[in-house]
Amino acid sequence: MTILERRDTGAIAHLKLNAPERINALSDEMLAALQEQFDLLKTDTTIRVVILSGEGKAFCAGHDLKQMTAGRQSEDGGKAYFKDLFDRCARMMMSIQALPQPVIAQVHGIATAAGCQMVASCDLAIAAEGTRFGVNGVNIGLFCSTPMVALSRNISRKQAFEMLSTGQFIDASRAAELGLINRAVPAQDLSQETHALAETLASKLGAAVKIGKQAFYEQIQMPLDQAYAYTGDVMVENMLYRDTEEGIAAFIEKRDPDWDQ
Amino acid sequence: MTILERRDTGAIAHLKLNAPERINALSDEMLAALQEQFDLLKTDTTIRVVILSGEGKAFCAGHDLKQMTAGRQSEDGGKAYFKDLFDRCARMMMSIQALPQPVIAQVHGIATAAGCQMVASCDLAIAAEGTRFGVNGVNIGLFCSTPMVALSRNISRKQAFEMLSTGQFIDASRAAELGLINRAVPAQDLSQETHALAETLASKLGAAVKIGKQAFYEQIQMPLDQAYAYTGDVMVENMLYRDTEEGIAAFIEKRDPDWDQ
Amino acid sequence: MTILERRDTGAIAHLKLNAPERINALSDEMLAALQEQFDLLKTDTTIRVVILSGEGKAFCAGHDLKQMTAGRQSEDGGKAYFKDLFDRCARMMMSIQALPQPVIAQVHGIATAAGCQMVASCDLAIAAEGTRFGVNGVNIGLFCSTPMVALSRNISRKQAFEMLSTGQFIDASRAAELGLINRAVPAQDLSQETHALAETLASKLGAAVKIGKQAFYEQIQMPLDQAYAYTGDVMVENMLYRDTEEGIAAFIEKRDPDWDQ
Repeated sequence: MTILERRDTGAIAHLKLNAPERINALSDEMLAALQEQFDLLKTDTTIRVVILSGEGKAFCAGHDLKQMTAGRQSEDGGKAYFKDLFDRCARMMMSIQALPQPVIAQVHGIATAAGCQMVASCDLAIAAEGTRFGVNGVNIGLFCSTPMVALSRNISRKQAFEMLSTGQFIDASRAAELGLINRAVPAQDLSQETHALAETLASKLGAAVKIGKQAFYEQIQMPLDQAYAYTGDVMVENMLYRDTEEGIAAFIEKRDPDWDQ
Repeated sequence: MTILERRDTGAIAHLKLNAPERINALSDEMLAALQEQFDLLKTDTTIRVVILSGEGKAFCAGHDLKQMTAGRQSEDGGKAYFKDLFDRCARMMMSIQALPQPVIAQVHGIATAAGCQMVASCDLAIAAEGTRFGVNGVNIGLFCSTPMVALSRNISRKQAFEMLSTGQFIDASRAAELGLINRAVPAQDLSQETHALAETLASKLGAAVKIGKQAFYEQIQMPLDQAYAYTGDVMVENMLYRDTEEGIAAFIEKRDPDWDQ
Repeated sequence: MTILERRDTGAIAHLKLNAPERINALSDEMLAALQEQFDLLKTDTTIRVVILSGEGKAFCAGHDLKQMTAGRQSEDGGKAYFKDLFDRCARMMMSIQALPQPVIAQVHGIATAAGCQMVASCDLAIAAEGTRFGVNGVNIGLFCSTPMVALSRNISRKQAFEMLSTGQFIDASRAAELGLINRAVPAQDLSQETHALAETLASKLGAAVKIGKQAFYEQIQMPLDQAYAYTGDVMVENMLYRDTEEGIAAFIEKRDPDWDQ
C-alpha cells in the first residue's frame, strides 16, 4: 500500500494522502511522495487538474510529531534535520502553486497546522460541512510560523492572528466566510462537488489556464505598474495561441470551438 | 453621437459608456475616449467626483473581440497590435487610480473581463441587484490575466482564482460580500444611490480628498515603516492647508467651516 | 490621576486610556505615556498579553485637535510640530506590532481617526456591539492618511476607501465582517470576553507566541519564497526550545506539559 495514492480519470489526477492511522501526517515519506508527484505532474501535459484529498477520518493533521521527536537524537539536537524538514515542506507547498495545473483541496474531518497550510496553498478548496481548520501548534509550544505564510495570504490579519495565537479551530462555514476555502458542502456531496469543479476546469483550454495560473501568483507580488506590464505580455502570448484564436472565432460565430488541445 | 457621454452636474462628472449595441466594449475608440477624459479630468479643479456607468442593458462586456480578431490580419498575426492594445488598456485602468478625484463605478447588467477589471479599478462601486460579474475569458481560451491584476487587489485569492479559472459569474450581493463592490442596491435606486454617494464625496474638502486618494494607493504598496514615513509627510502638508485649519477650527467652535474651495 | 492607567493581573497588563473628558484623545501626553509603557513592556518577560481599553464613554477619538491647533502658533505655522507629532504617533502604533506580547484592543463607544488606527494596529480586537468605527478626518478637511496605513492592512480596498472618503461610521458588526475586529459582543460581556481571550493567550508558551508574533508581521511583507526561508528558520529555533520539546513530548504522551516558563 502506497502512502500517496494517485488515480487519474481523464485529465484529472487525484492524489490521496494514505496514512489514515497517522491522520495523513506530513512525514518525511509523505513529503517525498507528494514532491515526487508534483515533479511528475509539472511536465505532464495530459493532466489538467489535480485533486488533493485524504484517506480516513481527516484530511491532514500536519507534521509527524513522533518522527520530529525522533529527529532530536542527533548530536545537534535535531537542528539540521528540522532545517531540512521545513525546507522540504516549504518546497512541497510552493510546488503546488508552481504546478501548471490548478490544484483543488478536497477537505474533510480536520486540516491542522501544516495540513491547514496545504489547504491554504492549494488554488481552490472545497470542504465538507463540519470540517475543522486550525493552526494549533501554539498549544504544544510550536507556533505555526510556516503555516502562517500560506494562511496570512488567504485570510485577513486579525482572523489569521487569532487562529495562530489561540490555537482554536474554525469550522468550514467560517473558513468559507474568511476566504480560506471556496465553499463548504454537505459531507455526502464533497467528492461529487470537487469532481464537478475539476471537470469544469478540465474543460477549459489547458494552455490558457496554465499561463493564467502562473501569472496569477507572479503578478500578485508586484507593484501595480509592473503587474500590468507583465500580464500585458502574458495576454499577448495567450492571444497568439492557435486554440485561443479558434476559441474567440467560435464565440463570435456562436459555435463550439474546435480545439487541438 | 459620441461613444462616451460626459455630463457635468456641479462638481460631479458623469461619464457614460455609450456603445450599447456592442455592450459598451472597450474598443480602440472607447479606450481613447476614456483616456482623453481622464487626461482632461486630471487637471480639472472644478470636478471633485467622477461617476462611470454604461448605457443600455449592461455596464461593460470587456474588450471588443471582433476588433481584436481583425487585428490578426497584420503580418505578425496581431502581436504588435495586441501589445499596444493591452498597454493602452492598462494605462486607462491605472489612470482611474491616478485621477485626483474619486471614481465611482455605477454598475448594472453585466461587468465582464476588462469590464469587471474597470469596476475593480474604480475607487468605489455600487451595483444594481442582479448585476453579474465575471472574468470569463477562460471560456474562450483567453485567461483574464490583465483583469486579474485589479481583481486580485480587491478580493481574496481563492475567490479570485475561482472566478478566473471557472469563468463563472457572481452576482452583486456576492460581489459586495467579497469586496469587489461597496454595495448592491435595488435597480431602481442605482442612479440615485450613486449620485448621493458622489454628492457626499463632493461636499468634502477637495484638496484633502485629492492628497488622501493619492496617498492611499501609494502607501498600500509600501512596507509599514515607509508607509508611515510617507503618510506622515502627507498629513503635515494636509494640516497646513488654509481650509484644513479652518475646518478644524470650525469643528472645535461647533460651527460650519467657511472653506475657500 | 494618571493619563494612562496600568493594572497587571498575573501575566496580563491592562492599559487604560484615562482622559475621558477628552474622549481619550492621543495628546502629546497620551502618546508619551503609551510609548513609555510599550518601551517597558518590550523587555518585561513577566507580562504575556496586553489589553488596551479606554475609560469613559468611548475608546478613543483620535488626535487632540485643540492641542494641534495650539501648535500652529509657532513661526512655521506648526509644520515642525506636526511632523514630530505624526512621527511619534506612528512610532507608538508600530510599537504595538513590535511588542513581543499580543495586544488586544477592548473597544467601546467610538474609535475614530487615530483611535480607529490604534484598533487596526492591535493584533486582536473585540468590541461592544454598537461601537462605531470611523476614519472621519475628511469631514473637517484632514484626510486620515496615517490611520489608513493600518486600516488598509486590515480590510479590503473599496471598504477602506469608502470609510476614508465619506467619513461615515461603521458599526461593530460590520467591522467584524470586514476584518477590522475579531468579533462584536454584548456590551456587558466586553470586559469578560476580552479577559477570557487574554487568559487563553497567556496560557500558551510565551516564547512561542513571541517568536511567532514577530514572524507574523515580518513574513507578511515578504515574497513567498523569502517568507518560507525566514519562517523555516523561525520554526527551527522554536523547535529547539526546551519547553517546546516538552510540549510536543507531553502531547505525544497525552499528558500536560511541564513548562519552565
